Amino acid sequence: MKRIGIADTMFSRHDMAKIAEKAVFDSEEGIKVERYTVPGVKDLPVACKKLFEEHGCDIVLALGMPGPMPIDKVCAHEASQGLINVQLMTNRHILEVFVHLDESDDERELVRMAEDRVRKHTLNAIALLKGKEELGRFAGKGIRQGHADAGPLRI
Amino acid sequence: MKRIGIADTMFSRHDMAKIAEKAVFDSEEGIKVERYTVPGVKDLPVACKKLFEEHGCDIVLALGMPGPMPIDKVCAHEASQGLINVQLMTNRHILEVFVHLDESDDERELVRMAEDRVRKHTLNAIALLKGKEELGRFAGKGIRQGHADAGPLRI
Amino acid sequence: MKRIGIADTMFSRHDMAKIAEKAVFDSEEGIKVERYTVPGVKDLPVACKKLFEEHGCDIVLALGMPGPMPIDKVCAHEASQGLINVQLMTNRHILEVFVHLDESDDERELVRMAEDRVRKHTLNAIALLKGKEELGRFAGKGIRQGHADAGPLRI
Amino acid sequence: MKRIGIADTMFSRHDMAKIAEKAVFDSEEGIKVERYTVPGVKDLPVACKKLFEEHGCDIVLALGMPGPMPIDKVCAHEASQGLINVQLMTNRHILEVFVHLDESDDERELVRMAEDRVRKHTLNAIALLKGKEELGRFAGKGIRQGHADAGPLRI
Amino acid sequence: MKRIGIADTMFSRHDMAKIAEKAVFDSEEGIKVERYTVPGVKDLPVACKKLFEEHGCDIVLALGMPGPMPIDKVCAHEASQGLINVQLMTNRHILEVFVHLDESDDERELVRMAEDRVRKHTLNAIALLKGKEELGRFAGKGIRQGHADAGPLRI
Repeated sequence: MKRIGIADTMFSRHDMAKIAEKAVFDSEEGIKVERYTVPGVKDLPVACKKLFEEHGCDIVLALGMPGPMPIDKVCAHEASQGLINVQLMTNRHILEVFVHLDESDDERELVRMAEDRVRKHTLNAIALLKGKEELGRFAGKGIRQGHADAGPLRI
Repeated sequence: MKRIGIADTMFSRHDMAKIAEKAVFDSEEGIKVERYTVPGVKDLPVACKKLFEEHGCDIVLALGMPGPMPIDKVCAHEASQGLINVQLMTNRHILEVFVHLDESDDERELVRMAEDRVRKHTLNAIALLKGKEELGRFAGKGIRQGHADAGPLRI
Repeated sequence: MKRIGIADTMFSRHDMAKIAEKAVFDSEEGIKVERYTVPGVKDLPVACKKLFEEHGCDIVLALGMPGPMPIDKVCAHEASQGLINVQLMTNRHILEVFVHLDESDDERELVRMAEDRVRKHTLNAIALLKGKEELGRFAGKGIRQGHADAGPLRI
Repeated sequence: MKRIGIADTMFSRHDMAKIAEKAVFDSEEGIKVERYTVPGVKDLPVACKKLFEEHGCDIVLALGMPGPMPIDKVCAHEASQGLINVQLMTNRHILEVFVHLDESDDERELVRMAEDRVRKHTLNAIALLKGKEELGRFAGKGIRQGHADAGPLRI
Repeated sequence: MKRIGIADTMFSRHDMAKIAEKAVFDSEEGIKVERYTVPGVKDLPVACKKLFEEHGCDIVLALGMPGPMPIDKVCAHEASQGLINVQLMTNRHILEVFVHLDESDDERELVRMAEDRVRKHTLNAIALLKGKEELGRFAGKGIRQGHADAGPLRI
């Protein structure tokens, strides 16, 4: 049985893990979920590493909602670097799913974006578990999460 | 007996370690404290690594008070990257508790923020020692340290 | 038989991998291609590492089309750092081939740049497989990919 | 006998190593000094690593004087990241002592700052050799090097 | 016999390797040269690592000519971080010799800077091969490459 790790934060203003758990359940793939909650996005990298090395996960979703201030942007950047480093140390994927609190002024729109982005990336994670070419049919299609797809460039 | 490391700096303008030590004591969890004082925030990463590897700590609080100038922001960023790297090298959490000297013009307000942020993160550290789902009930609640909670997005 | 890895993204708005595959085929060097598709550029580093370590590649092309916003620039920077780290971990080259969506306002021009940049870097990858001095005759010539060559400085 | 490494640069516009050597001598602690001179600050990280691993140093002072231009700031940042990484690889402290050439317009003032900063950090290094709590009495006191102490926040 | 690696790029608009090779030859030190040409500066780190680990080099010169655009500055920064990392992985020096295309508007001046900077750093590399104190007599003298020396601060 495959195992998806879900690392999320107290800082986030929406329960992003619940969306991911529902998407895993709805997939009917029989995948087990391991949850890990930390204070903020900078705590996610080691949580993800522990999900791989101490809790047997095959792939991890790193869920966070960085704030709107310059310092928050720096924190998100540091977290992202750490998440990439964990992947290189473990040879496993972490899909980073961050919704920045300044992506919209409308709180309902932020929730909508979070729902869409988490759900789509959960499906991406499930696909990546099946192999390196599973997402190949979407390659170069301008696919987006949280927004409508940009689509291919018009020639 | 669990062991919490507290790494702090001479540069800081408030004795942040004392707040953390009191919060550990008040928790009545019987946790031992190991203290390590260094000149500034860029010296914290190796101090934290030594707290794990040479002094047997299970988790570390990295306490600092970066200055208000652009060079201070760069130092804090470098320190943060190092702190994340230490976590990935040791598979243990470091909770970074930085109060930036430009977060308020009022020195009393800075002290209040430091008290609140250090105390709350000390409790987070104690919770993380108990397991990966211990903070799960706070997930997505818009929890803050040093400020009032932002709370969940309104739908 | 040599093996070239091609890692590409769903985010890209053009099928960059197809250009690379054609360039490998047209080279008539009898090189095998391994394809790996991921959601976005930040997922490329671990995909490249797996192409080396789990799929036997000798060199990898990392193809991506970062967006025009500041956050996209940060993502591309994080991806680039990861790609360099993978090379240092494996002692193998990854040629990063990124076309930034703000390099031109004209979608046809972006496609033209992608075609040129991917094709030329695929040829560079094939050359690097032959040895460290294979590209020596182009050294210091102001060679560009995606644009006309800048040429040597005029003395 | 303890051994302090002193890594310094040709780029620096003042002989910072001489200040450090005098402070070690004046301390009458019987500490041996190992000197390593490199062209600029980006060459310091590996010099420090070699001082630890090939020349038996217990702690290192990394002395530099970055220039005033944006490119110099980037170089200093890269050097600082490298210095932190060396510390994490060796579990030993490096005290970075940089005087930026734009910290003052007055060359005599720059020399005064260098003298003060190098001397104080040499004493910090000697203290750190004695143990993790040796600097504890200065914790949270707003201690500065190169400038007057900021002192504790007023409550 | 000592061996100097010279890693250079196709992107560069001047044959910087030829300058370095001539400086090694003129030194009459009987040092062997290993050359490695890559497309651009981001390809230099792994080339340098391979020069050390697969081609027996004792020190490496990393020669490049980053472009004038913001994206080029980011590339140069990423390359520099990688070059520092290689040094820490191998305990050997890499002297980075970059001439930025916006250092002068005059192409002849850029060539003059490249000639001076490459030649001087080649001599620095040869000196570093002799030991950690070989450059000590230049310490703190405000030495520059590509420009006239800044000289020591006036007291």
